[in-house]
Amino acid sequence: MDQGFEPSERVGSTGKFPSSNKYDIVIVGAGPVGLLLSACLARWGYSIKHIDNRPEPTKTGRADGIQPRSLDLLRNMGLKSDIMAYEPAKVYEVAFWDPVSSGTGIHRTGTWASCPSFIDARYPFTTLLHQGMIERVFLKDLKKNGVEVQRPWTTKGFKTDAKADSEYPVEVNLEHVDGEYRETVRAKYLFSGEGARSSVREQLKISIKHKDPIAHIWGVMDGVAVTDFPDIKMKCTIHSEHGSIMVIPRENNLVRLYIQIASSTDKDWNPRKSATEEEVQNSAKRILSPYKIEWERVEWYSVYPIGQGIAEKYTLDHRVFMGGDACHTHSPKAGQGMNTAFLDALNLAWKIHHVEAGFADRSLLESYEPERKLVAENLLNFDAKYAALFSQRAPAAKDVAAASQQSNSGEEENEFIATFKESCEFTSGYGVAYNPNSLNWSSSHPAQSPHINPKGNKLRTGRILINATVTRVVDANVVHLEQEVPLNGSFRIYVFAGKPPKTLKALADFAQNLNKKSSFFSSYLRSDIDKVSHHEQHNPHSHFFTFCTIFSSKRSAIEISRDVPGVLARYRDHVYADDVWDQKVPEAEAAAHAKMGLDQELGGVVVVRPDGYVGIVTSLVQGAGTVDSLNSYFDAFCSKAISEQKAHL
Amino acid sequence: MDQGFEPSERVGSTGKFPSSNKYDIVIVGAGPVGLLLSACLARWGYSIKHIDNRPEPTKTGRADGIQPRSLDLLRNMGLKSDIMAYEPAKVYEVAFWDPVSSGTGIHRTGTWASCPSFIDARYPFTTLLHQGMIERVFLKDLKKNGVEVQRPWTTKGFKTDAKADSEYPVEVNLEHVDGEYRETVRAKYLFSGEGARSSVREQLKISIKHKDPIAHIWGVMDGVAVTDFPDIKMKCTIHSEHGSIMVIPRENNLVRLYIQIASSTDKDWNPRKSATEEEVQNSAKRILSPYKIEWERVEWYSVYPIGQGIAEKYTLDHRVFMGGDACHTHSPKAGQGMNTAFLDALNLAWKIHHVEAGFADRSLLESYEPERKLVAENLLNFDAKYAALFSQRAPAAKDVAAASQQSNSGEEENEFIATFKESCEFTSGYGVAYNPNSLNWSSSHPAQSPHINPKGNKLRTGRILINATVTRVVDANVVHLEQEVPLNGSFRIYVFAGKPPKTLKALADFAQNLNKKSSFFSSYLRSDIDKVSHHEQHNPHSHFFTFCTIFSSKRSAIEISRDVPGVLARYRDHVYADDVWDQKVPEAEAAAHAKMGLDQELGGVVVVRPDGYVGIVTSLVQGAGTVDSLNSYFDAFCSKAISEQKAHL
Repeated sequence: MDQGFEPSERVGSTGKFPSSNKYDIVIVGAGPVGLLLSACLARWGYSIKHIDNRPEPTKTGRADGIQPRSLDLLRNMGLKSDIMAYEPAKVYEVAFWDPVSSGTGIHRTGTWASCPSFIDARYPFTTLLHQGMIERVFLKDLKKNGVEVQRPWTTKGFKTDAKADSEYPVEVNLEHVDGEYRETVRAKYLFSGEGARSSVREQLKISIKHKDPIAHIWGVMDGVAVTDFPDIKMKCTIHSEHGSIMVIPRENNLVRLYIQIASSTDKDWNPRKSATEEEVQNSAKRILSPYKIEWERVEWYSVYPIGQGIAEKYTLDHRVFMGGDACHTHSPKAGQGMNTAFLDALNLAWKIHHVEAGFADRSLLESYEPERKLVAENLLNFDAKYAALFSQRAPAAKDVAAASQQSNSGEEENEFIATFKESCEFTSGYGVAYNPNSLNWSSSHPAQSPHINPKGNKLRTGRILINATVTRVVDANVVHLEQEVPLNGSFRIYVFAGKPPKTLKALADFAQNLNKKSSFFSSYLRSDIDKVSHHEQHNPHSHFFTFCTIFSSKRSAIEISRDVPGVLARYRDHVYADDVWDQKVPEAEAAAHAKMGLDQELGGVVVVRPDGYVGIVTSLVQGAGTVDSLNSYFDAFCSKAISEQKAHL
Repeated sequence: MDQGFEPSERVGSTGKFPSSNKYDIVIVGAGPVGLLLSACLARWGYSIKHIDNRPEPTKTGRADGIQPRSLDLLRNMGLKSDIMAYEPAKVYEVAFWDPVSSGTGIHRTGTWASCPSFIDARYPFTTLLHQGMIERVFLKDLKKNGVEVQRPWTTKGFKTDAKADSEYPVEVNLEHVDGEYRETVRAKYLFSGEGARSSVREQLKISIKHKDPIAHIWGVMDGVAVTDFPDIKMKCTIHSEHGSIMVIPRENNLVRLYIQIASSTDKDWNPRKSATEEEVQNSAKRILSPYKIEWERVEWYSVYPIGQGIAEKYTLDHRVFMGGDACHTHSPKAGQGMNTAFLDALNLAWKIHHVEAGFADRSLLESYEPERKLVAENLLNFDAKYAALFSQRAPAAKDVAAASQQSNSGEEENEFIATFKESCEFTSGYGVAYNPNSLNWSSSHPAQSPHINPKGNKLRTGRILINATVTRVVDANVVHLEQEVPLNGSFRIYVFAGKPPKTLKALADFAQNLNKKSSFFSSYLRSDIDKVSHHEQHNPHSHFFTFCTIFSSKRSAIEISRDVPGVLARYRDHVYADDVWDQKVPEAEAAAHAKMGLDQELGGVVVVRPDGYVGIVTSLVQGAGTVDSLNSYFDAFCSKAISEQKAHL
């Protein structure tokens, strides 16, 4: 990994040339996808050339919805409080308004939670904030890690040629937008986060496949309104005899209105149809009647066409990648654009890291496209289903109530309720489930052992880890277990250690087998391991993994020096007591164990990918079985031959 | 109120003189008490001359413990997230270590929660952060409101002379510490937050009364340690055969050690006794043995004598006031210094505001000293009791367990448990109870009505409002009711409106009677009431009060335009549904009503002082009774004659 960072210079402007024109990655575009990728790689020590063709961050408009799962991610990066400092609006419920059956005007037919309680979310709301502020939070974080976005610069082409330079095979030509300055750099990777009009995608001749031939023209307006409409601070879908509108509350008393101006299904469809700001305001007045609405000021107004499309490929050679709107475009209605972009970037970031750090085989990068393309396809399908759900009928209050309950009764759900639940999971970000592959264990994974996927396990591979509140032993702090390891690019290995007397031997065996030659533990020890600070909490042995140990005991009953064996004891800041009561499992003595579906006395081991998705779950058994299972799991994608057996071949 | 702000100028340094030398207040000292006072008055629009004799904020050491109640306050001021951004240590539990009975060394005899669950705290922990960082948070906030602390400046005397200038009776002479520049200003008030060595107190010839003749010499050291002592991240009280030590964890792996070097009860007492940094380190090594401790670096080290004393007066003429360490000094053990200082300042701030804004009679200022001096006296008594509690015996595990439970069983508590509970309440900051006076209703208050202090009421006047989680109606956000009104200097009037059909008439009568001539509502309407923004949430009618209305209904059942009558409807952002389940009252349908002890169907009205303490509780009845009761309450300290009866005299 190239740790040296060489800030680029405007060629000719200062007379200075960069002392090296080589970067780990060139990132084009400083919207959500580019910024999150950059923020990850910057904190893991990579050198980055990041450019954007705009002279400054987004000033008005654009995406503004941060879903619950994205907020988890931002918190894990230490950026949530900076986001919240802008006092964004929070959407907890969505209201539906329809024409009154007799007479004129509209009435509320129902509301439902945007993230109902059956989803175990830390933040059961959508956070709404102007994209420019979100970008600023990332730019500040990047600056802290030595990266500044070079603006307004653009790419003028690139080529990949491993023969010319096998370490830095990508050559990228950059140019200031006014054409005055040019720069050619070499990189290990090139990433396009340029949005729907991606020059990289064009050069690669990757086409966009339109899932749905229907295109729409949307009008969007951000402003401060004076109105007696009671739900102006809620997210609303309003149908009236005068048309439809969507209301999204924003920070600082701002409100966003989305109006569909035309659709290719209209009889008089004209792809160039537009509407003025005043027309949209008048339209909103008619739709909201009998309520009144006046505008104190309008911050932003735009009309734009959107088609639903997915790029056929996200990469051709696993050196040049794309993500975000460059890969998928869709309607803004479900508020998914920025969130999908964040998770595209996160997925790619750690894979690049593990390949470049020497942990994973280069083939790991091949999992980026199938994992993320599936999500984009689901998003587009969902978008259609979501729209249909409401056009059929307004949801009945009792259905919404029933759907909002967590029901394990096994009762048959009607289609409405099933679709509702699915849509809540999807829009919250918790519905993302990656398919089985070498990272997401399944019965067809090379790792096979009776200890894998133990009976009762409620965790699903390819899905996010279930939340759990526990007590940290060293300082008795009550903490969120899923947030305890920051976004450090490491696999998170949660050793649920059950009740100490029962698991004493199993835990000792686990620690001992980690230390064996060719285990995943021994294979990737830090080269500077002797110089690691006493205060290093997360990566004392390796950047490949971080261990957490969780006991089914009261905190006061746990003595780290006695109960945590071998190398695990070094992670003293990651030892927890599963002793916090949880409303979701009110009867459980050890709520975290219970929520994961692990035996409260015997525990189990959960491996979570660096991006937070479950990789594999095993039981915690005496002997070598548990570590052997993990070795086999990691062997499926690691750069070295892992596991005792293989090492002895 | 003087809204104009004139930043002071160094006389002679720029050649510019201030265009006016008049200020609402001169504040001397930019430690916790001065900063909080300044921060309050600045946001309420007062002109402030704030000086400090140090060239910059505290660099190292000093106070660092923020108690749960203080954190509530900081959140209410919008400063909590800035404090938390420094990643302070959080103390949830205190560990006790004693000599082992046989052999040498120490062992843990028990731990207990620093803020156990019987205290209904939002943040059940002590936050530990270097005072300089806390000061910086305040300085940033002050700057936002146009105040900059003038450093290093000091006072050279003052005089109060109402004849010379009745509006600005205090003349203060200020001087740069190097004597080069001088400035004379006039002010309505002068406040000394200078710490234990208060020049203002000296000039006023107010003496310190020493409650306890015992003085102590303390050594305190902040540093980064490498140790195998398992509780280094907990607050610990350690007794050993080699002496005693107190361990306080801090941010950034820092730890603070307190060692009592000498006490006036020692046989060889010498008030000048000292100890070097190395001596303290060696002492710590012996005390912690068999555990090892080495220091990576020492950030701060100091030895200082502390006596326990209280100033006999906090003011002489209610123009010149003192607060914080200028009024009370005590041992640092209970971590109360900064917290008591914050609450001194808060108590004074809103009283000055209400007098200067014309709301309250000038006699309101006379309640500052008795309210705050009582707290200081309790603190000193507590300090002694707290120490005795531990010298008698180590707490038995079962006693701590029993004490930590919320018990309403009426079982007799032993003295240990009673003292423990009291001390937890006290150290958390929730134990503060102001005595009855015109602000804190009691049976001897002028306001007398059968509607006051209704049966079942669990709120106590002079104590802080009980926490409650509710759903805000306009945006369905789940919120903390006690935080919904920011620190805006207004009385908070919580109308618990029970079940709408049952209280329909009572609520309408309440709204109607507010509007009557000479009611507290009508008496203090804003002069700019016609120009108030549609978006004003808290003070649309007056800076004297903010109304909140809370129904015992599901959010979706509440329609503000239908259910909230008259002037109350204008507080549309402060209408709530009491529909959030609370673990503390698991059976209640309306948890907030239940926690306050108000009838879940019939409601009640709670008046909370601008500083968060309950003033009066009444039932919500049909007719004029409820508003009449509030009128009589406010009449006891308001500047105008309040209430119908009086107006008709």
